[in-house]
Amino acid sequence: MNQLLKFFSKEDYFARHCGIELLDAGPGWAKAQMPIQDFHLNGAKTVHGGAIFSLADFTFAVAANSSGRLALAINATTQFISSARQGVLYATAEELSAKRQLGNYQVKITDDQRNLIAMFQGTAFRKDEVLFDH
Amino acid sequence: MNQLLKFFSKEDYFARHCGIELLDAGPGWAKAQMPIQDFHLNGAKTVHGGAIFSLADFTFAVAANSSGRLALAINATTQFISSARQGVLYATAEELSAKRQLGNYQVKITDDQRNLIAMFQGTAFRKDEVLFDH
Amino acid sequence: MNQLLKFFSKEDYFARHCGIELLDAGPGWAKAQMPIQDFHLNGAKTVHGGAIFSLADFTFAVAANSSGRLALAINATTQFISSARQGVLYATAEELSAKRQLGNYQVKITDDQRNLIAMFQGTAFRKDEVLFDH
Amino acid sequence: MNQLLKFFSKEDYFARHCGIELLDAGPGWAKAQMPIQDFHLNGAKTVHGGAIFSLADFTFAVAANSSGRLALAINATTQFISSARQGVLYATAEELSAKRQLGNYQVKITDDQRNLIAMFQGTAFRKDEVLFDH
Repeated sequence: MNQLLKFFSKEDYFARHCGIELLDAGPGWAKAQMPIQDFHLNGAKTVHGGAIFSLADFTFAVAANSSGRLALAINATTQFISSARQGVLYATAEELSAKRQLGNYQVKITDDQRNLIAMFQGTAFRKDEVLFDH
Repeated sequence: MNQLLKFFSKEDYFARHCGIELLDAGPGWAKAQMPIQDFHLNGAKTVHGGAIFSLADFTFAVAANSSGRLALAINATTQFISSARQGVLYATAEELSAKRQLGNYQVKITDDQRNLIAMFQGTAFRKDEVLFDH
Repeated sequence: MNQLLKFFSKEDYFARHCGIELLDAGPGWAKAQMPIQDFHLNGAKTVHGGAIFSLADFTFAVAANSSGRLALAINATTQFISSARQGVLYATAEELSAKRQLGNYQVKITDDQRNLIAMFQGTAFRKDEVLFDH
Repeated sequence: MNQLLKFFSKEDYFARHCGIELLDAGPGWAKAQMPIQDFHLNGAKTVHGGAIFSLADFTFAVAANSSGRLALAINATTQFISSARQGVLYATAEELSAKRQLGNYQVKITDDQRNLIAMFQGTAFRKDEVLFDH
């Protein structure tokens, strides 16, 4: 899993641009965090849906690619439940199903008071290419 | 609409952080663009789903808030259709329905070759507060 | 909860038409089953997505209406994970969040071998009217 | 297209059970209707979300299978916009994208007053098997 962590921490430029940090990952799961900064805010001065989604989508991608085979997101749904303004957001991705080509994942986004901020469901399509060599 | 454009161009910090530019907007619709930069890329070196979503979500927010009453996203679904690597991404949001408290919107994301990159559907919940004064 | 069970078992004509049976319910949750019959099948002779959705949507509705205040589905997403051909399908709905007007729910659909058939996420909008008197 | 129409009208038992009628179809599109009957109603005496979804999902399936290769729904999202109580519901499915294995579709549900009742987005996964012989 070391290589997975290294790959996503270094090669995912957008996650870095958003201040997203990969905490841990294993077969079919991943955890990440995003300390809230001013650039995450929208016009209402709460964390932008795009920032919340990016945290969820990144964590989903790590979980979906944990086998090393390239998996692409084909579909994602987010329920935005509570607003967040400060502190740290956490994402936990888990695998609901994994077939040869399709995988389904769920990501829970919480704040540091354990409030549920958003729920994310994603479907990934696995290609034959490898994302990185083991 | 001038004030809507000014408000979202200035006050949405995350959109600015992502290099998203509001092009135009009117009652129930909006258009925006995002010139692809290196920081938009994921590990596979295509535009990150989070960046595509952020462009769509921003454009949806402008359309949903075009009346000046604060509208929050409660739900969003994205179908990721084609990868994008370079050039400019465009988003066009249109209103499917607008009731007193709920509104439904659709956003089409295309690249500068007119390829369909993603389709986004969002539901907004309107509050009684105003987002900005007219 | 007795009244909730009676109301939904009797008054939801479509659920009855689909052979859906409410098993149990409480504040924010519900369980139902659907013994697979020939009329549930699609052209590929597996259970129709519409039948699976109807089972999930019914169970979601019972959970969302468990307080007695009328709640309407405004959004639902389903990930279809495995096909089902025979036996009994089970649905379990749980509440992810409940605010004054909006509630988020998740429904898991399994078969009698405990295979995960589908995952459903729904958002409900609560009206001031009551669905039935306590 | 004749065979497609015949196949889905005859072999989709659940669509028949729901009173869904296929009107027309071609490469990547389909139209169907569902005259509202008492058995379509939910506890609030409006058309059940499951019945609306079934109409949309059926029309999506016809459009996605119009090439004759077996396509399965892997994901579907529905925005429920207005309630329906009587008359006829119409569904129109169109293809947003079609790749070797994945296709994206959108279905619009309207009533006979042209009110928008629901919007449906579905993703289909194409198998190598044929659904029926040409």
